[in-house]
Amino acid sequence: MPHINLSNDYPGIRSLFVYRPETAKPLNGLVQVLLHDPHPTLSAGERELIATYVSNLNTCYYCTNIHGAIARHQLGNDAGTVKQVLADANTAPISNKLKSLLKIAAKVQSGGKNVTEDDVMTARAEGATDIEIHDTVLIAAAFCMYNRYVDGLATWQPHNDELYDKMGEQRAREGYGTPPVKVSEMELTQTT
Amino acid sequence: MPHINLSNDYPGIRSLFVYRPETAKPLNGLVQVLLHDPHPTLSAGERELIATYVSNLNTCYYCTNIHGAIARHQLGNDAGTVKQVLADANTAPISNKLKSLLKIAAKVQSGGKNVTEDDVMTARAEGATDIEIHDTVLIAAAFCMYNRYVDGLATWQPHNDELYDKMGEQRAREGYGTPPVKVSEMELTQTT
Repeated sequence: MPHINLSNDYPGIRSLFVYRPETAKPLNGLVQVLLHDPHPTLSAGERELIATYVSNLNTCYYCTNIHGAIARHQLGNDAGTVKQVLADANTAPISNKLKSLLKIAAKVQSGGKNVTEDDVMTARAEGATDIEIHDTVLIAAAFCMYNRYVDGLATWQPHNDELYDKMGEQRAREGYGTPPVKVSEMELTQTT
Repeated sequence: MPHINLSNDYPGIRSLFVYRPETAKPLNGLVQVLLHDPHPTLSAGERELIATYVSNLNTCYYCTNIHGAIARHQLGNDAGTVKQVLADANTAPISNKLKSLLKIAAKVQSGGKNVTEDDVMTARAEGATDIEIHDTVLIAAAFCMYNRYVDGLATWQPHNDELYDKMGEQRAREGYGTPPVKVSEMELTQTT
């Protein structure tokens, strides 16, 4: 049960967005720019993978599953890549550049000062640009916020693959600015 | 030296805002709502204290000093309270309600799941409202982002009390939407 009375039945961060629209606006605006809007070189699927990876390091069930679902849809319904990145990014079927960016993201997750010049030089050697390094650091930092926000208020985080798939398909298609799908319209067969 | 070429001389997060205006907009929008805009019950000074406290836990020099300066100006140029909160929040001259909110903020800083029902019940017993608990969690979570962003890209963080005081006075008065003061106009006597 959430720590405060949110007065709505939406899951995860969506319940917080409905509760406090004043903060929802910039929070949605940030994730829209970072993960969905056109990027010079990183695909939406790659950026969603970074968000999913950091959310998993922070053990945030809701964020890992919704961004994992969005990544899967952005990557052409490729569930294998998401699973392999979460199991072991080093052996996952992704580029060496993305692996080096995930290493930077993991450093940011553990604390900003942990990112070293060596980490950045390695990413550069794999072809990473300044804007890619910048956006990786900010995506990782932002999910250290979103994950803490979702877990710190103990939001409802249903265990239901169908729900995350449906929400993920919507976000992959529409981005982050549209109203969420109604959970009550769905059959929640695995909800806990 | 910053990990990437920011092409400007602004300190801390301001250099990142100039580098990437697309993400600066929602990042400034969020901090404006959380710390500066009118709030039902928490003063701007109290909210800046929460931000300063979390930034200090994350050992982010720039954010601790700029938000400490803003808090000081918001609290009527009261430097003592800021210093005492950072030294030992339990014995600082602040309300028991604010102490209980700082405890929640510290839990969020260490990880969202660390916030317990007991923490929330204690805050409620001291008079904290749902919106105060919500905003405390989000301020703490947001500064886990801002701190990682500032340190993760190794931004320039001058050690200069006069600089932070001048920038802090500006932000306390104008909020977060206006262009930053030019550092080059100032005498940086203690810069490192």
